[in-house]
Amino acid sequence: MKIYFAGSIRGGREDAARYFEIIEQLGEYGQILTEHIGNPELTGRGEIDDDKKIHDRDLAWLRQADCLVAEVTTPSLGVGYEIGKATEWGKPVLCLFRPDEGRALSAMIAGCGKAVIKEYQRAEELRAIFADFFGRLIA
Amino acid sequence: MKIYFAGSIRGGREDAARYFEIIEQLGEYGQILTEHIGNPELTGRGEIDDDKKIHDRDLAWLRQADCLVAEVTTPSLGVGYEIGKATEWGKPVLCLFRPDEGRALSAMIAGCGKAVIKEYQRAEELRAIFADFFGRLIA
Repeated sequence: MKIYFAGSIRGGREDAARYFEIIEQLGEYGQILTEHIGNPELTGRGEIDDDKKIHDRDLAWLRQADCLVAEVTTPSLGVGYEIGKATEWGKPVLCLFRPDEGRALSAMIAGCGKAVIKEYQRAEELRAIFADFFGRLIA
Repeated sequence: MKIYFAGSIRGGREDAARYFEIIEQLGEYGQILTEHIGNPELTGRGEIDDDKKIHDRDLAWLRQADCLVAEVTTPSLGVGYEIGKATEWGKPVLCLFRPDEGRALSAMIAGCGKAVIKEYQRAEELRAIFADFFGRLIA
């Protein structure tokens, strides 16, 4: 199973440590194509490379992926863009959202209908969410 | 000409006044399907309605639209999602970005290749950007 994990980079790295934990847990289910998103050394400046090259590489990975798992607590244009593509391409999508400080999830994501939306607070809660999501995918 | 304007709602309303100015200028070129995005009374809580209803209405508008104009300075999942759909559907896309405080635009947007990206600082600069973008659309 190839898993595309999406999290904010240039939108803000506040949740970078959480992305790392998620990627670690996801590793039990398959190969993570985007491990760099959990790298604590990756700052909000993002990867220093040509944007077109980054875009085309990431989109090629997303096309190859069996599913998209997105952490959607920090608003991010790139994560939204990837959810838009993945739902259009018929890929299974799981969105993880940590309700906090009264911020509501985008209606375009929450109301999308083609993505499974799961709220959580602690990384431990993700075990059951992943077991359920990947259990259905494999079944 | 039907224009879909996209700006952040639940991602943050810091730029709401700017969205209003943009919508006013865009009105010279056609009908804006999403005028509510510039409404100063619309807060970061967003529209109080069923998320699925909001999503399906907005996506139906985007399908009808002749083009998408997005203000991408405030990171937003919904705006990213809409750019992902519009580029997939072959719609012309114009993204307006205000470089500020060293924040770089998402590589997924900047490197997308199917969107015209224009940087600006003041609303007055948008006149020439719109004249050029819509001039090419109509030509």
